[in-house]
Amino acid sequence: MYVRIFLKYLKIGGGKMGLQKVISAYIPQGVFVVTSKMNDKINGMTAAWVSQVSFRPRLLAVAIAPQRYTYEFIKNSGLFCINTLGKDQIDLAKHFGFKSGRNTNKFENVAYIYSLNGCPVLKDAIAYFECQVVGECQAGDHIIVIGEVTDHKILKEGVEPLIFRWEDFFGGVED
Amino acid sequence: MYVRIFLKYLKIGGGKMGLQKVISAYIPQGVFVVTSKMNDKINGMTAAWVSQVSFRPRLLAVAIAPQRYTYEFIKNSGLFCINTLGKDQIDLAKHFGFKSGRNTNKFENVAYIYSLNGCPVLKDAIAYFECQVVGECQAGDHIIVIGEVTDHKILKEGVEPLIFRWEDFFGGVED
Repeated sequence: MYVRIFLKYLKIGGGKMGLQKVISAYIPQGVFVVTSKMNDKINGMTAAWVSQVSFRPRLLAVAIAPQRYTYEFIKNSGLFCINTLGKDQIDLAKHFGFKSGRNTNKFENVAYIYSLNGCPVLKDAIAYFECQVVGECQAGDHIIVIGEVTDHKILKEGVEPLIFRWEDFFGGVED
Repeated sequence: MYVRIFLKYLKIGGGKMGLQKVISAYIPQGVFVVTSKMNDKINGMTAAWVSQVSFRPRLLAVAIAPQRYTYEFIKNSGLFCINTLGKDQIDLAKHFGFKSGRNTNKFENVAYIYSLNGCPVLKDAIAYFECQVVGECQAGDHIIVIGEVTDHKILKEGVEPLIFRWEDFFGGVED
């Protein structure tokens, strides 16, 4: 798999892999749909930059570009929900990743339930973690939003998480 | 350190997968040795909580418990180096994870070179990213240290990164 990827870069990049692709290949990350709510509205976006950051309390962090529509929702409600996608769910990741909820209802035709405090949970996700925001931190062109886990569930036991691979989402696009 | 924390959890548990195990299973992370230098000394520790957090500039973040010896080194030099381990390097991860550099020289019998600004790079790592600290942020019992990539290289092309799995490191210990 990786061998194929690397051979591809040889042709495209003329031998050299750009830094973004090297990071994507060697800092493994999952693929998630981060959802939130704002009053009676819901929204969600695909993200890969999610990490645990504390044991006590159990804190998760997600780096989000502040211009993202979902960020408004998180600021408003103080809540976000990390939906973990399974290894065959690249299409679902693209659905929530390649358009903005400002112009379209991403949840049309997508089955969902609600987490404890009302964030949308994708029925097809393999697990979710609802978090209450406890802080945030500027990091370059993104904001690291930190939240304490307030609700979680495994939805599909035994299905492995999707690991982000640049070419699954950006094909021949150079970084 | 980790062992101590987790043995404490032994009492809890009992059949149901605890939150920490669910997080470890459904928030995929790599396994890294984070190295640094302090004057003429070097040290390193195993970490899983590493994520990219910005495109421009290219920033990586690692969550580190502030009592870790390596954190002193990072504060002193303003540098850290993320060494990505490959899928067969659990032993190397354990070597750098289960003891402190305060009491032992973890680099004895470990081959290393230096990154551009003098952090140790494990010769057996599959890739490394040297970072200059640009900020940090408290998150529960850890500090999120944020750094801009100042040097990087793929060391073993075609080898897949190790993905952290609870049982590879903590066996039957409940969370």
